[in-house]
Amino acid sequence: MRYELYYWPGIQGRGEYVRLALEAAAARYTDVARLSRSQGGGVAAIMRMMEGERARRAPFAPPFLKAGRLVIAQTANILQYLGPRLSLAPADEAGRLWAHQLQLTIADLVTEVHDTHHPVANSLYYEQQKPAARRRASHFIRERMPKYLDYFEQVVAGNPRGRGHAVGKSLSYVDLSLFQIVAGLRYAFPRAMRRLERKLPRLRTLHDLVASQPRVAAYLDSPRRIPFNESGIFRHYAELDQ
Amino acid sequence: MRYELYYWPGIQGRGEYVRLALEAAAARYTDVARLSRSQGGGVAAIMRMMEGERARRAPFAPPFLKAGRLVIAQTANILQYLGPRLSLAPADEAGRLWAHQLQLTIADLVTEVHDTHHPVANSLYYEQQKPAARRRASHFIRERMPKYLDYFEQVVAGNPRGRGHAVGKSLSYVDLSLFQIVAGLRYAFPRAMRRLERKLPRLRTLHDLVASQPRVAAYLDSPRRIPFNESGIFRHYAELDQ
Repeated sequence: MRYELYYWPGIQGRGEYVRLALEAAAARYTDVARLSRSQGGGVAAIMRMMEGERARRAPFAPPFLKAGRLVIAQTANILQYLGPRLSLAPADEAGRLWAHQLQLTIADLVTEVHDTHHPVANSLYYEQQKPAARRRASHFIRERMPKYLDYFEQVVAGNPRGRGHAVGKSLSYVDLSLFQIVAGLRYAFPRAMRRLERKLPRLRTLHDLVASQPRVAAYLDSPRRIPFNESGIFRHYAELDQ
Repeated sequence: MRYELYYWPGIQGRGEYVRLALEAAAARYTDVARLSRSQGGGVAAIMRMMEGERARRAPFAPPFLKAGRLVIAQTANILQYLGPRLSLAPADEAGRLWAHQLQLTIADLVTEVHDTHHPVANSLYYEQQKPAARRRASHFIRERMPKYLDYFEQVVAGNPRGRGHAVGKSLSYVDLSLFQIVAGLRYAFPRAMRRLERKLPRLRTLHDLVASQPRVAAYLDSPRRIPFNESGIFRHYAELDQ
């Protein structure tokens, strides 16, 4: 099976959680929109798929994954599908429900991170909503970010035979996503994160454990890993990191 | 199996999607926090469970469902678990992934509805974030609400042998959730909804189809259905419905 991932070609965004899973498992895949237009890529490729699927089971938004005849959207749904196929999820039902539950909690956090710079509307520029962004980011840093991160720290601590993994005894898509959360928050809110991280030894260790997996390390070093930037979800605006 | 639902006792909120599924299937369940404190209910019951689960697989937030030894959180995850057990989901894998994908898109819409009255912080009162709420609600009504509703209208249209159902050929948790979306948006944004609904004949029909299911109708008529109110997710503030 060769998977096709459809996601905005210029950002990590929500597609990154899927990219990390495919890369960590050395899955065969094409990141379709990152191909050149002459190769059938670009944003046009995403639009073609969404229009072509119109009459049937069209996604509401990217990312979506083509797996044979299936087209699956919603990041956590894609990872739930890929998990057992890429050996990145627990084998038992309870473990899979738990992994998915955590991934959905990560998705909620990602939305809150996004809304720190876009609290009013996605269709406006950041510059058009700066006062609200400053207020939202301030509450996020003081209330929500510690609440989520403390929770995930507890999750890792509550998996004592997991050798540092979030669920089960080996690498899962939840570990990969938590790596991305730590990396992204360090990029977006370096000051806040430095302070918070002192109390998050398990998440720090998990981040390093994931980053040192040979396939993940190779991916992070490659041009396939898009750098963080101010079009993505994790954006660094110094005025929001207070 | 007798299920135990744990959710805030004073609001419909995210718990309502689970309540509707349990009610439509005539499942045996206890809405634990709605019991009196002497019966072991109240918000304290939610807190006890979250603390008791602390060391193991604690939910980040309600709603969560106790099903035997399993404790499952995240609304869409709960519905995915209950779906096949309550005959409220398609039988095939592709159909179940599709139903879950739609439910996750509904969850995204629910978050956006919530943020129309809380664009800055959940820990502040609405009254402390009114200017930002007005801007966010205006964009929501003009851009996001039509985009989501048109999408779901297309979904129902794209299921031509579904006899008005969103997925498959019979009632599913997706239908129940779309009913709740229509009912909630009518409550929160009656002016905007009246205008938009003209172009949503299938969603209107689906709403009525669900409301006329005998078990659902009995539930909606009972004291078990908490009325919409201004502590929930769908809130009616006339100034936001412009």
